Amino acid sequence: MAGGAGGTDHALERLVFFSDAVFAIAITLLVIELHVPHIPRGAPDSAYWQALAQLVPSFIGYFFSFFVIGAFWAGHHRAFTLAGRYSAKVLSWNMVFLLTMAFMPFVTAFLSQNIGARVPTVVYCAVMLAAALLNMRVQRIVTGPDMLAADVAHEDVAYVRKRGLSVALGAATALAVSFVVPVLGQVSLATIPLWRRLIARMPKGEEGA
Amino acid sequence: MAGGAGGTDHALERLVFFSDAVFAIAITLLVIELHVPHIPRGAPDSAYWQALAQLVPSFIGYFFSFFVIGAFWAGHHRAFTLAGRYSAKVLSWNMVFLLTMAFMPFVTAFLSQNIGARVPTVVYCAVMLAAALLNMRVQRIVTGPDMLAADVAHEDVAYVRKRGLSVALGAATALAVSFVVPVLGQVSLATIPLWRRLIARMPKGEEGA
Amino acid sequence: MAGGAGGTDHALERLVFFSDAVFAIAITLLVIELHVPHIPRGAPDSAYWQALAQLVPSFIGYFFSFFVIGAFWAGHHRAFTLAGRYSAKVLSWNMVFLLTMAFMPFVTAFLSQNIGARVPTVVYCAVMLAAALLNMRVQRIVTGPDMLAADVAHEDVAYVRKRGLSVALGAATALAVSFVVPVLGQVSLATIPLWRRLIARMPKGEEGA
Amino acid sequence: MAGGAGGTDHALERLVFFSDAVFAIAITLLVIELHVPHIPRGAPDSAYWQALAQLVPSFIGYFFSFFVIGAFWAGHHRAFTLAGRYSAKVLSWNMVFLLTMAFMPFVTAFLSQNIGARVPTVVYCAVMLAAALLNMRVQRIVTGPDMLAADVAHEDVAYVRKRGLSVALGAATALAVSFVVPVLGQVSLATIPLWRRLIARMPKGEEGA
Repeated sequence: MAGGAGGTDHALERLVFFSDAVFAIAITLLVIELHVPHIPRGAPDSAYWQALAQLVPSFIGYFFSFFVIGAFWAGHHRAFTLAGRYSAKVLSWNMVFLLTMAFMPFVTAFLSQNIGARVPTVVYCAVMLAAALLNMRVQRIVTGPDMLAADVAHEDVAYVRKRGLSVALGAATALAVSFVVPVLGQVSLATIPLWRRLIARMPKGEEGA
Repeated sequence: MAGGAGGTDHALERLVFFSDAVFAIAITLLVIELHVPHIPRGAPDSAYWQALAQLVPSFIGYFFSFFVIGAFWAGHHRAFTLAGRYSAKVLSWNMVFLLTMAFMPFVTAFLSQNIGARVPTVVYCAVMLAAALLNMRVQRIVTGPDMLAADVAHEDVAYVRKRGLSVALGAATALAVSFVVPVLGQVSLATIPLWRRLIARMPKGEEGA
Repeated sequence: MAGGAGGTDHALERLVFFSDAVFAIAITLLVIELHVPHIPRGAPDSAYWQALAQLVPSFIGYFFSFFVIGAFWAGHHRAFTLAGRYSAKVLSWNMVFLLTMAFMPFVTAFLSQNIGARVPTVVYCAVMLAAALLNMRVQRIVTGPDMLAADVAHEDVAYVRKRGLSVALGAATALAVSFVVPVLGQVSLATIPLWRRLIARMPKGEEGA
Repeated sequence: MAGGAGGTDHALERLVFFSDAVFAIAITLLVIELHVPHIPRGAPDSAYWQALAQLVPSFIGYFFSFFVIGAFWAGHHRAFTLAGRYSAKVLSWNMVFLLTMAFMPFVTAFLSQNIGARVPTVVYCAVMLAAALLNMRVQRIVTGPDMLAADVAHEDVAYVRKRGLSVALGAATALAVSFVVPVLGQVSLATIPLWRRLIARMPKGEEGA
């Protein structure tokens, strides 16, 4: 039956490296969905400003997704800092989580080109929720008995998990809102810090139900 | 004649790094073949859902190829964990193997836009088979006398090679099926775990014919 | 409240790695905005040369932005060489700075397709100025008390900060010029070395106002 | 005047990393210039094979450039294995060299869509020659007094430089041929191994004129 890859630090590093590369590529690829407007030569400045103004929803979607991927990267970063050894258990979950990140350019472009429409907003928020739940699953394995480094304080683990939970609750809120008032769907992701504060008040050890 | 690069760990690391980067880019680039549907402003929700429904074959192709590249990456990962030193012999084979990975966005898009058609399925499965055979070749060098680390158990090597063989047999099955019943071609890649179990029953040391 | 990620070298390395990956992807993605001209089969050589000649503004924009991103990478590189430990304070500023780098393919294409027009030049120079200011902010944190390595000479810190300031002054000059004489906007970035010399004459310790 | 970045191993690693990332992205981005043919639903198999047949020049160009970038990466790899410390002198030359690599997707697509035409072949070979000359320059710095590791044999340096020279001579041959018989331009790059053998016979120490 033989375990294949030994539980070495090297395997952990390579997993982290691969994940970082996918995050970095996904975040940088977002820009290719921003299509440069074609403006006839000699047009007045106002024509250029108008063309840019029409791209504002695309810019907002771009910036928003840039920080969403960045925030997920930072959370991944934070969780893996606590890991001391590799476990094959994290591989598949991490891959499915990365799929949601790599998928962001598509849902971002779909939303940006249809700002205010219900379906693209619902799809965007649903992918966010899936990412948040998968992120929680990965964080749970990384900070679990198979991977956690020996010298990590319990409160550092709790902090990582609480942040993960707050993102999932914020995404769930945004998904619910996007069904009813699409235009407020994305904005509702701003409830994440509120959820974080609420969870921070939960008694110790309860956060990981 | 002079050997050029010394057989140092550093050369091994840089090869692994380069390979990981190609895997990560290929897996993340898959998304650019998913074209965002253009839907007129003010269209009902049903128009959006229909547009997404028409993209379902593209989504399936996307997810499928994402996990194919991910699985090849994991196998590459597993094999190189067993290597202890660099050998120039692996360089060319690894490069040709990476070519099949980098080529995946093309064959995926070709298949997704022509789901059920014979030729795209055959091409997809043929590239898979080529990838699987090249993967076996790379694994054989990495776990061979030139590169294997000193302290690796024989059964770990056998495990890696058996997995490599099962992927090749699954891809060969899929290629054969795709000629006869195209729509079942991709599905036949699901025979990989069956092949793995079958090979696991083979007597020790026979797997590497 | 617990700090989450410990201030380890590993966290610093991962941040540098992620940043490098974004720089590398942004710089390499620039090429996809260069559209290959379609020339009818059997056309004379002159038709090809003319098609290339029409692309000259795109080539100039491409090369220019390649070296802009390269220069910002080198500056980032130089600053982080002085860091000895990680601080969470740098994370958000670094992410916003990376956003300006990832955004370069868009502003480059917008400028290249409208060479000499005021708005695209202003937008390009404004993004450059934003990048330069964010770069200064990141450099200040990296060479500040939270992150600076123990054995770094004061003059190395001063050198990094002066370079950062000269880029910002050059970008501000270019932005001002591009409002008045658009076609000279980009060229005015060539004042960066002049600003650098001017700043080098400033009395020690004054550069970081 | 202060040197800024110290001549540490870390700076060398980061430069190698950045270069590897650009190589990996350029090599993987080649695929986006392969456009998937649109074939009407229900078309016979022959229509698919014909569509693929029409893409053969694109496939050849793709494979060729894949191995060109791979070969330059391997040469870069080989040279930097000999370096023991960082020198700021290599930075700019390495960046200009990387520019030629990042530019490959454009010249490849230009050549593939115009197989046999003089101008695209000349442009392709000229970029190859520029890459080869810049590669030689970078190798010379890396294996020169500022960067060479202490324990490197003189013949390893000679080997790296001879390979670099043979690539430049092959590219120069291809460029000359492509002016006269365009269709044989790319094929003439196959003279590289011939040049390598010829140079190998040169008396020791003469290769670096």
